[in-house]
Amino acid sequence: MDLKQKFRENVKKIKAYIYVLQLAGWDSNTEAPRNSFKRRGEILNVLSKELFSLQTSPETIKAINELYSNIDEYDDLFQREIRKAKRSIDKIVNIPEKEYLEYQRLINDSQLIWEDAKHNNDFESFKKNLEIIFDYNKKFALYYAPDKNPYDTMLDDYEEGMSTKDYDIFFDALKKDLVPFVKEILSAKKEDYSKFINNKYDVKKQEEFCDYLIDVLNFDRNSGLMKKSVHPFTWNTSPEDVRFTTKYLENYVFSSIFAAIHELGHALYEQQVSTDYDNTLLNGGTSMGIHESQSRFYENTIGRSEEFWNTHFNKFKELFPEQTKDFTAKDMYKAVNQVEASLIRIEADELTYPLHIMLRYDIEKMMVNGEITVDDLPEVWNNKIEEYLGIRPSNNSEGVLQDVHWSGGMIGYFPTYALGTAYSAQIYHAMLKDLDVFKIIRENRIEDINSWLKEKLHKYGSSKTPKELLVMITKEEFNPKYYIDYLKEKYSNLYLNK
Amino acid sequence: MDLKQKFRENVKKIKAYIYVLQLAGWDSNTEAPRNSFKRRGEILNVLSKELFSLQTSPETIKAINELYSNIDEYDDLFQREIRKAKRSIDKIVNIPEKEYLEYQRLINDSQLIWEDAKHNNDFESFKKNLEIIFDYNKKFALYYAPDKNPYDTMLDDYEEGMSTKDYDIFFDALKKDLVPFVKEILSAKKEDYSKFINNKYDVKKQEEFCDYLIDVLNFDRNSGLMKKSVHPFTWNTSPEDVRFTTKYLENYVFSSIFAAIHELGHALYEQQVSTDYDNTLLNGGTSMGIHESQSRFYENTIGRSEEFWNTHFNKFKELFPEQTKDFTAKDMYKAVNQVEASLIRIEADELTYPLHIMLRYDIEKMMVNGEITVDDLPEVWNNKIEEYLGIRPSNNSEGVLQDVHWSGGMIGYFPTYALGTAYSAQIYHAMLKDLDVFKIIRENRIEDINSWLKEKLHKYGSSKTPKELLVMITKEEFNPKYYIDYLKEKYSNLYLNK
Repeated sequence: MDLKQKFRENVKKIKAYIYVLQLAGWDSNTEAPRNSFKRRGEILNVLSKELFSLQTSPETIKAINELYSNIDEYDDLFQREIRKAKRSIDKIVNIPEKEYLEYQRLINDSQLIWEDAKHNNDFESFKKNLEIIFDYNKKFALYYAPDKNPYDTMLDDYEEGMSTKDYDIFFDALKKDLVPFVKEILSAKKEDYSKFINNKYDVKKQEEFCDYLIDVLNFDRNSGLMKKSVHPFTWNTSPEDVRFTTKYLENYVFSSIFAAIHELGHALYEQQVSTDYDNTLLNGGTSMGIHESQSRFYENTIGRSEEFWNTHFNKFKELFPEQTKDFTAKDMYKAVNQVEASLIRIEADELTYPLHIMLRYDIEKMMVNGEITVDDLPEVWNNKIEEYLGIRPSNNSEGVLQDVHWSGGMIGYFPTYALGTAYSAQIYHAMLKDLDVFKIIRENRIEDINSWLKEKLHKYGSSKTPKELLVMITKEEFNPKYYIDYLKEKYSNLYLNK
Repeated sequence: MDLKQKFRENVKKIKAYIYVLQLAGWDSNTEAPRNSFKRRGEILNVLSKELFSLQTSPETIKAINELYSNIDEYDDLFQREIRKAKRSIDKIVNIPEKEYLEYQRLINDSQLIWEDAKHNNDFESFKKNLEIIFDYNKKFALYYAPDKNPYDTMLDDYEEGMSTKDYDIFFDALKKDLVPFVKEILSAKKEDYSKFINNKYDVKKQEEFCDYLIDVLNFDRNSGLMKKSVHPFTWNTSPEDVRFTTKYLENYVFSSIFAAIHELGHALYEQQVSTDYDNTLLNGGTSMGIHESQSRFYENTIGRSEEFWNTHFNKFKELFPEQTKDFTAKDMYKAVNQVEASLIRIEADELTYPLHIMLRYDIEKMMVNGEITVDDLPEVWNNKIEEYLGIRPSNNSEGVLQDVHWSGGMIGYFPTYALGTAYSAQIYHAMLKDLDVFKIIRENRIEDINSWLKEKLHKYGSSKTPKELLVMITKEEFNPKYYIDYLKEKYSNLYLNK
């Protein structure tokens, strides 16, 4: 067998293990009974170890290094695969096994410690773990790239090609333009839709509406399905099996609707990747940022547009005649775009959301660069949110303890949320040159939008980097201007022009 | 590592592979989207091969043979494990690999061929495959035990310890006592409940009733769940994760109810096995027959008893007030025990069911012993069913083509269905000495029955053979008398004594 063929065989085997581990994850998150988890953990551990051995065996490493040293002999697609494989290997090989295992254990333990700390509003009990997590991540980043700023390495981990330099330009633009605009909007006079929003909406009917949305967005039911879970997510193993979940709250109907549309965005992306990549390392969406650009596009640009509710409010009314008695499609449009300064990121609206991310970026950067320590975190957090949104947490549970990410070792992940949304505005700007998007939404032909995205973006899977895709689609490098313009236009129209 | 420890490690690893393959099976049967199957097949094939290598590696075989040759050194439980491992290995090792693979392919292809044949009422198109399947099974049985009648080997495969001799006694008793009794009942005057039974019953409400039954039978919801599927089945990986399905038909409400109770019987058995056996080969129910004894006990002895419906008809009425308007609990009792001569096994009632099995046993025995050939099958089938039930199929789809089993290579499986039901009557007879079963059902305390079965049977998993269990519980060898008595008493009361 030649080297390429051997690599293929190895990838196929690795993918088989990942597949069943993913399947167990889907099951765990959507239906597995409570008492099954202990034994499941032990069993999956056996297979995870097998997988890890496969991925890091001396033989595998040797093969990848050999392929890499002759990379020019291969076509572009295979070159990209080799680079991805090489990168994964290089991330691990220099970490002493002892440290790797210690870190795995730390991450595992920290989940519960964080949960308890958040629940008890007790930052002190989580502080030590958080400090060690930051230390390990810094150390690992330096093992991989000793001469690079560790935070740059982390940022690149979650969004290939991005660095502090790129993000600084992005967030500085937001700071300059968006923070004052948000303040203006926050102080504008607004109707109060909270009674409408927080009315009681029967969960079965909510389910029916979400099921209706599946067809509105033209998700392929033969290649996927919707379920519910505590935290909405999208799951996929190939374009032919893409599943997603949403979350139902009786007193907050928008939770299920916008989680469903958001996850449908992720899911449509995955369904439209070319199946040619199924048995390669080029399957699936190319990055966190690009993925988030798709979910946010469907959720906000489509799902929170006036046209969308002009078309679909009737269906909503049909399911909830009582709750919508005195309300029009226009009211719905306003209600789904209600802006307010809030402390919790995952509850933030489209306009204030990026400021929550900016704050996390500032803090991660300072932490990794040693400008602040874990002791400073609560105070720095509270000062920043006050600076950006004019409100201050009364406790750490609604401040620095609110997110799960750091306890899971994910440092450098947050910025992709805002970046993705900004990507989406830039891509949307390009789309408007080809498509009459509002007409399409009004006429309920979202498949036309899907087709455009498939041809321009989705079908490529991870065969191209985020940067390559963005330039291909929009003919320019990442530019935060489109995002800021989009937000200013939409929210000026909603709250300042009337 | 000593031999025993090595064996343990190997079992643990094997179980991990089986676990994820089972999980994929659960997913396939309950929710996986249609387009996922092709890729899933390829992927699971990779893991099945890994599993097969693990199970049949020269090293594994050597270890098991070594353990077996010193079996007296170990305690009873481990001896039983060694015997089970040795038996599995011996079933395979003497089959030439080429034949083994050819057979796998044959079985795989035959599924679709049988489906089409059944659909088109075309026995000729399936005949050849069926012949080869019988030939292979005979050949494999002779590889394993050259001096034994091959059908005996097959019967023992599906029910440890059973042979033609044992089954002949059983079925001869049925032939002698039950066939004339069934004829008597069939010709008795009966009320016609078909309009009530085949009325329209909303599927969501049926689901609600099945959900209610979960608690009636005291199934542990923290260690399992109910879903729906095309063919109802029970699935388990350990007592802490036992799942089952039922099937909803709008025009046949008994389908969901009795499939649910039947599967709940299997599921309760699995939930009550001792978790001590989790990482051994002694987990799970001990045999097809014993398993079926539990499902049929809950389905028929409990679920089709007058006491059961006296207690639960109110709930049924509450969900279906229209359909039950002129009906009493007594009517329900009669309706769920309606007897009729029918051609299709899976639609047969409790009384005529064993005659369908008897027919299959007769035919399998003659086929394996070379007394008839595939060419004779349709005619022999039709003559037999006419002899036992007085009706004759008008085509092979409702005759010899009706069951999936043979196309899947399962020869010797059918008899366990009737045997299990007969076991259940014998166990029930023993239970009556300790428990006032009808009072318990009336007072809705089925947990008391579960506890009895746990202590006497369930907790042992497969650490004892079916024969050992039966003697332990009932203080005698298998005796079909209890089954025949039970049927005669119940159906005389229902149809002859009024």
